[in-house]
Amino acid sequence: MPNAETLCRDLARIRAVAPLVHNITNFVVMNSTANALLALGASPVMAHAAEEVDEMTGIAKAVVINIGTLSAPWIEAMRMAVRSAAALGKPWVLDPVGAGASRVRTETSLALTRVAPPAVIRGNASEILALRGGEAGTKGVASIHASEAALGAAKALASAIGCVVSVSGEVDLITDGNALIRVANGHPLMPRVTGLGCAATAITGAFAAINPDPLEAAAHAMSIMGMAGEMAMEKAAGPGTLQLHFLDALYAISEADIARRLRMSAG
Amino acid sequence: MPNAETLCRDLARIRAVAPLVHNITNFVVMNSTANALLALGASPVMAHAAEEVDEMTGIAKAVVINIGTLSAPWIEAMRMAVRSAAALGKPWVLDPVGAGASRVRTETSLALTRVAPPAVIRGNASEILALRGGEAGTKGVASIHASEAALGAAKALASAIGCVVSVSGEVDLITDGNALIRVANGHPLMPRVTGLGCAATAITGAFAAINPDPLEAAAHAMSIMGMAGEMAMEKAAGPGTLQLHFLDALYAISEADIARRLRMSAG
Amino acid sequence: MPNAETLCRDLARIRAVAPLVHNITNFVVMNSTANALLALGASPVMAHAAEEVDEMTGIAKAVVINIGTLSAPWIEAMRMAVRSAAALGKPWVLDPVGAGASRVRTETSLALTRVAPPAVIRGNASEILALRGGEAGTKGVASIHASEAALGAAKALASAIGCVVSVSGEVDLITDGNALIRVANGHPLMPRVTGLGCAATAITGAFAAINPDPLEAAAHAMSIMGMAGEMAMEKAAGPGTLQLHFLDALYAISEADIARRLRMSAG
Repeated sequence: MPNAETLCRDLARIRAVAPLVHNITNFVVMNSTANALLALGASPVMAHAAEEVDEMTGIAKAVVINIGTLSAPWIEAMRMAVRSAAALGKPWVLDPVGAGASRVRTETSLALTRVAPPAVIRGNASEILALRGGEAGTKGVASIHASEAALGAAKALASAIGCVVSVSGEVDLITDGNALIRVANGHPLMPRVTGLGCAATAITGAFAAINPDPLEAAAHAMSIMGMAGEMAMEKAAGPGTLQLHFLDALYAISEADIARRLRMSAG
Repeated sequence: MPNAETLCRDLARIRAVAPLVHNITNFVVMNSTANALLALGASPVMAHAAEEVDEMTGIAKAVVINIGTLSAPWIEAMRMAVRSAAALGKPWVLDPVGAGASRVRTETSLALTRVAPPAVIRGNASEILALRGGEAGTKGVASIHASEAALGAAKALASAIGCVVSVSGEVDLITDGNALIRVANGHPLMPRVTGLGCAATAITGAFAAINPDPLEAAAHAMSIMGMAGEMAMEKAAGPGTLQLHFLDALYAISEADIARRLRMSAG
Repeated sequence: MPNAETLCRDLARIRAVAPLVHNITNFVVMNSTANALLALGASPVMAHAAEEVDEMTGIAKAVVINIGTLSAPWIEAMRMAVRSAAALGKPWVLDPVGAGASRVRTETSLALTRVAPPAVIRGNASEILALRGGEAGTKGVASIHASEAALGAAKALASAIGCVVSVSGEVDLITDGNALIRVANGHPLMPRVTGLGCAATAITGAFAAINPDPLEAAAHAMSIMGMAGEMAMEKAAGPGTLQLHFLDALYAISEADIARRLRMSAG
C-alpha cells in the first residue's frame, strides 16, 4: 500500500534523476504538460513524427499517450510509440481524453491498449465508463459522472486489460482490478483549469518511469496532483492564478507538506 | 438593445448550463481559449479530425472557427463543422485571424461564410476591411487600423453575408448591418497578450450558444471581455500577469461589477 | 562590441517599430513565444501552410525556424520560408531543438542551413555539439552539457556555416567563429520553464529584424532574456509564477535596469 513514505521516496527519485518522459499529447495542453513535468523534476519531450517516435521512446523512461486532439497521422505515431515501449519494456500511460464523445476517441483508446497493455489508464469517470461500453455520454472532454459511478467499470477495465485504472474526480480511484486506493486530495476549482487532468496523466508517467509498480505510481501521481492543487489554492484567486501557483507548488512540495496533507486510503 | 440586465441574465445562464462549445482553432491559442471558456463557465472541446468533427458539432451548442494557423486538412474540417452546424441549426462564429495578410486566410474566411452564414464574425479592423476587399494591409495578425475605420466595411459585410460583425478595438463595434452597438470597455495593454482576440471570439460562441440573438450575444461577449480586462489590470503589472488575472476576472465577474463598469451604447 | 548602449538603442527600435517576426515553431511553445515577442514590443505571426509561407515571409522582417515538433509538411514549410527569406535578403534564425536526440532533428537542422545560412543558430550545448557531429547524447530537449563544453563546436559550426552561433547556458556564448561574447545574466530556475530557450530564439529574431549585425543581435537577445529572468525571479516563487513575471519584465525592462544588470563581456 503506497503511503507518504513511498511517495516521498519516489518524488526524491524523480527530482534526482529527472526521468525523460516522451509525450504524444494534444495541442491544447502541450505547454502546460511540459511545464508540469519540469516543475515536478522530470524531463519532458514531445515528438509525434513517424520519423523519430522510435528514437524518442528509445531514450525515454516512460511514454505518455493522450488522445485529446487526434488525427490519423497522430494515431499512427501513437501505435508506433506503444509498440516501441512494449518492445523495450518501458511503461506507457494512456489518457483517453473525450472517450465516449466520439467513436474515434473510444476506438483509438481501446485499439492502443490492444497493441500492448498500458501500465496505467488515467481518465475521468465518463471516459472510463465509455471504455467499458457504458453510456457514451460525456460532455465533450468533461465528466458528467462522479468518480464513484465508474468504480465498477474501472475494476472491470483494469482486469480485462491487465493494467491499473486511475479515475480522477473529487475522490480519485486507483485500481488494478483487485486492490483499490482512494485519494481525497484536490480542490473543486481544478477542473476549471484546462489540462490539469492531462498533467495528472503525464505525472503518472513520471512516477511510472521510476517505479515498476503501476498501482503505486498512479496513486503517487494523483496524490501529488491533489496536494499541489490544494497548496496552489491557498494563493490563487481564481482559475488563472491557480494554474501558475500549481506549478510553483509542484516544484516546492516537501516531505512535510506531504506528511501533513496526504489523504490516501485503501479500499 | 442589450444592457447590463440582459448580460447578467446570459452570464448566469452560461454559468448554470455550461454550454459545450466546439472549437476548431489555432495552435497558438488553444490553451488560453479553453481556459477562457472554462473561466467564464462554458465547457470547451477542441476537435479537428474529419473522423469526429460531425459528432462533436452534434453534441455542442455552438461552433467556433478560428483560422489562425491554417492548413489544408484543417480547412476541410472547418467546412465540415460549418455544414454540420448549419444542418443542425446551431450557431457558428468565425474569427478570420490574419485575413488580408495572406490570400488563403482571406479566401478561406469568405468561403466558409458561403458554406453557411455565421452568427457572428469577430475580427479586428484590418481583418474586417480585408474581408470587404479593402486594402490587404494587415501587420500579420495585428490590426493597423482603429475599429472606426472599419465601420463601413463591417456594416456592408454584415448586410452582404447576413450575419453580425463584431470589430474589436479601443471601442468595439457590433453591427448587423443596421443596428450598431459600441462597447467602450477594455484596456490598451490587452493586445499585448496573444489570444485575447481569439478568446473574445470563443466567448462570443459561448453567448451565442445560449442566446439566439447574435447581436446581443456578440455585444455581451465583447463587454465581458473588456470588463474582465479592466478588472485584471487592477492587479496586473504587465502582459504576463494580465493574462492570468484576466482568467480570474472572467471567473469572478459579478452583477455588481457589470452594473458599475459596463460602457455599452447604441449607435 | 555590443554593450548597454547598443542594446538600449535596439530595444527602443523594436518598441518603436514592432517588427513583424514570422515563426514556424513547435506546438509546445507557440503561445509563450508569441507572448514573449509581444511583451518585448515585436509583432509575432505564426504560419506554416505551404499556401501562405511565402506571403508571410514577404511581409515579415525576420523568420524564426524552430524544429521542436517536426513532421514532414512542416519541414517543407521551413524550407520554403528559408528560401524566401534568403531571396528577399531577410535574416532567419534557427533553433535546433533536440538536435542529437533523433536523426531527423539533426539532419533537418543541417539541411536547412544548406538551403541558406541563417543569421544565427541559437541552441543549448548538447544541440550545438550534435550539429558538429559530436556525441549524439542529449536528454531529449534538455542539455546535458554546460555551455563551455560546446565552445569549440560553436566556433567551428559558425565558421563552417558562416553564421553566428549562440549557445545558451549558465553563461551564454555568442560567436561568429572569431569574436566571442559571454553573457552571464540569467537564473538557474529558467530551464524549469518550458519554452524559455525557444523565446530566446524568437527574441534573437526580433533583434535581427532591426539590426543587420547578427553578432550584436544575438548578444542583445541573450542579455535581455537573462536580465528579464533575473527581474522576474525577484517576484516569482517557482517556475509557474516565473513564466508570467518574465513576460512582465520583458515589457518593463528599462535603460536603468539594463545599465545596472548587464553582464556582457568579450572573449
